[in-house]
Amino acid sequence: MNKIDYIIDSHMEDLISDLQILIRQPSVSARNNGVLECSLLVKNIMEKAGIKTELLFPQQKKGIVTDNNFNIEPKIDRHSLSPPIIYGEVQSKRNPQGKTLLFYNHYDVQPEDPIELWENNEAFSGKVSGNYIYGRGSSDDKGELITRIKAVEYLLKSSGDVPCNIKFVVEGEEEIGSPNLEGFLIQHKEKLKCDGVIWEFGYIDEKERPIIMLGLKGILYVELIAKGGPSRDVHSSLATLIENPAWILVDALKSLRDSDGKILIKNWYKEVRDFSEVELELLDKEPFDEEIFKREYGISKFLNNVKNIEAKKFYEGMPTCNISSLLAGYLGKGSKTIIPNKAIAKLDFRLVPNMDPLIQFRRLCDHMLDQGFEKNLLEIKLLQKEWPARTTPVDHPFIKVVAESATAIFGSTIKSISSAATGPMYYFLDILGAPCVCIGSSYKYGRSHSPNEFARLDLLNKTTKWISKIITNFGNTKI
Amino acid sequence: MNKIDYIIDSHMEDLISDLQILIRQPSVSARNNGVLECSLLVKNIMEKAGIKTELLFPQQKKGIVTDNNFNIEPKIDRHSLSPPIIYGEVQSKRNPQGKTLLFYNHYDVQPEDPIELWENNEAFSGKVSGNYIYGRGSSDDKGELITRIKAVEYLLKSSGDVPCNIKFVVEGEEEIGSPNLEGFLIQHKEKLKCDGVIWEFGYIDEKERPIIMLGLKGILYVELIAKGGPSRDVHSSLATLIENPAWILVDALKSLRDSDGKILIKNWYKEVRDFSEVELELLDKEPFDEEIFKREYGISKFLNNVKNIEAKKFYEGMPTCNISSLLAGYLGKGSKTIIPNKAIAKLDFRLVPNMDPLIQFRRLCDHMLDQGFEKNLLEIKLLQKEWPARTTPVDHPFIKVVAESATAIFGSTIKSISSAATGPMYYFLDILGAPCVCIGSSYKYGRSHSPNEFARLDLLNKTTKWISKIITNFGNTKI
Repeated sequence: MNKIDYIIDSHMEDLISDLQILIRQPSVSARNNGVLECSLLVKNIMEKAGIKTELLFPQQKKGIVTDNNFNIEPKIDRHSLSPPIIYGEVQSKRNPQGKTLLFYNHYDVQPEDPIELWENNEAFSGKVSGNYIYGRGSSDDKGELITRIKAVEYLLKSSGDVPCNIKFVVEGEEEIGSPNLEGFLIQHKEKLKCDGVIWEFGYIDEKERPIIMLGLKGILYVELIAKGGPSRDVHSSLATLIENPAWILVDALKSLRDSDGKILIKNWYKEVRDFSEVELELLDKEPFDEEIFKREYGISKFLNNVKNIEAKKFYEGMPTCNISSLLAGYLGKGSKTIIPNKAIAKLDFRLVPNMDPLIQFRRLCDHMLDQGFEKNLLEIKLLQKEWPARTTPVDHPFIKVVAESATAIFGSTIKSISSAATGPMYYFLDILGAPCVCIGSSYKYGRSHSPNEFARLDLLNKTTKWISKIITNFGNTKI
Repeated sequence: MNKIDYIIDSHMEDLISDLQILIRQPSVSARNNGVLECSLLVKNIMEKAGIKTELLFPQQKKGIVTDNNFNIEPKIDRHSLSPPIIYGEVQSKRNPQGKTLLFYNHYDVQPEDPIELWENNEAFSGKVSGNYIYGRGSSDDKGELITRIKAVEYLLKSSGDVPCNIKFVVEGEEEIGSPNLEGFLIQHKEKLKCDGVIWEFGYIDEKERPIIMLGLKGILYVELIAKGGPSRDVHSSLATLIENPAWILVDALKSLRDSDGKILIKNWYKEVRDFSEVELELLDKEPFDEEIFKREYGISKFLNNVKNIEAKKFYEGMPTCNISSLLAGYLGKGSKTIIPNKAIAKLDFRLVPNMDPLIQFRRLCDHMLDQGFEKNLLEIKLLQKEWPARTTPVDHPFIKVVAESATAIFGSTIKSISSAATGPMYYFLDILGAPCVCIGSSYKYGRSHSPNEFARLDLLNKTTKWISKIITNFGNTKI
């Protein structure tokens, strides 16, 4: 065993203890709960690791409201401060003019609801049981973050130096759509110059094969507010004469999608590009255990009954239209029979190259007008938008370094054309012009965004080794 | 002015003060909040009025669960006590063998939500401002109840006697579907014998014409729980492969009703009987100011654009299918993009003669099966059922007494074939075999079940006079 792997193995208690510190500090950006506090803990852990840090408070650009009247003026709320982006840096002593690797991570987490589905109603326990550590953020993204920090810390401990320059961008608003990241990258473009980006997360599958994902889907997240009913909640005995906004919402939603999942909005798929030969080859080679997947999520079949490579094409390369919430009327205990004044749905549309969220938003609004849902019946608000992104070509030298390092630690690796999830990767590709891969320590079925989220200790250990290997190989490789 | 009207006028402060005592005691049966406490206050006020009272605790028959597996065994919860039914009685000294009038009322109220839409966030203020008294229950049904009690109290004060025998049935579970009333009426059938029933509520229109309603609609109140998705809430990036129960719910709801409001369930209208000649005559004569109605509820047109007698036919004589709540996914602040594990709708169907809620429930379940919503995709729970009821013939002598008394006090009156609302009137018609009319002090646009519910003091005063007139005329009339 080499020296760095020995250090990593013998310091697992230190890694776990620092991860527990982070998990036990809730940092729910959706509710601005504990986010600033968490940033200070992350800064401490990074400084302790030997990483020079700065807290950079982004320029305010919060609360941009776009609706189907296309009012897109940003509304700046000067009374609320965005959580800081932590910038971290370690310069290579032996190779200061050499290559630079940038880690992008986040210290905020998804809301923990529904809390009653967590074991013992504890969402922030950081409890270790056997090979598992539990709590919101244990995988996404505090677990991932700790593997990056510790890889750097133990490399410094091992030799007093790092083989390439290291930069960190750790933000606190990823789970609410990174509203300030673009401005930050533009403002600090020179400072953040780099030759490769390691994305904030990645998965290791049920056979312990790390998955290297070369892209992320985009998202269009909207709110539909159906109106056209009574001016206040009224007794439902009036329902023979007064329209119910919930029925308008049902009609509007029903118009969006057929029962196979196909999106019925005109031109929705227009810019979706066909899979290239190389992408189809990768998809074909990629293992995907459908039975484990189905068992994990408690389903008996895939939507539209897709199978094999078709399932993989949908998962990695096709857009979605998903209802993430419905809300109307009385939600309390017991009965209350009313016609509600309004009915609300939130929808998230995942987007693939080369879809543009703003063009798709316009198409959605046009669709609703075409279907007869005038603005007085249906208000449409744009809540979040992200463009899809993919690093090409699939045999880029940076991707080769990452893949070979994975094989050295795990024995094998899988390349995937895209994650099914979303993140602001296109900012890094577009603004910094660097290739980017999604890799990480999260177990494929680690329940990120769900109750009882966990990380596996063996995967945290191996991923820390993997990251240290990437740093070493990247420093020693001519690209 | 006669003596009784003088007493009523000079005691308005006493009436208001007792009504405030009742409003200020929340009694939300849906949450079992303050209901028992309120029953004791009602008993005190009745005793003070000279009415002999008993608190009768109904036999437990709570929590009957019916679902689309047709499990209809009652689940008796022996740990929770139903609130008492207050029985009240005053025997006529001069005419103890004469006729008996029974008042049916309730002291429980609808939930006050959404509390933030009440002025000053006060739902139980009992505040008097000008001609108005505000608070949940001010109309429905504490305001109505106080007019009945005070009419009896002031008649006793005026002459030491009442012209006919009086009985009261005041329950605490009306707003949750009166689960114990049927058993109570069967158990106490002899004790409750009477010659006419005054229902718990009634309206006075915008021109101060009291409306005498001869019937009530029935109700079928159900919960649809869409499943068939993931076994827990999961990240919505999986939406290309995993079905979302919210889409199943949308499909199921969409199958129930066309956009004109017509219910698409097979045989739904089968037992709906045609309007009789006499009913059509009443409907035709009945005034209905469509503009005031629309302005009050903030709508620009009626559903399906109905007008004139068609609007009245729908309002009083046609069934409905209404979504009273929708619930799925993350409802908190900020964003959370998931596929929810389940999606829920509550629907209330108003029923008209001669529809049977249990037959309609079976038809709803069959419809969903026919549409492909197997029980593993859609669970259907029966939450509440009430049969429709109408008192016939429209020229029954009891109805004549009520109408003539109204004309004496208000100058005119309107007869209506049915309220659009629901209540267990059919129990009184079927079990006690007595005619029944819905009359009361509530202003037609008094916001019952809505925020800022109010009662008008002038109408409380006049209705107390009207009730005392009915008691007097009923005692003096041979039927």
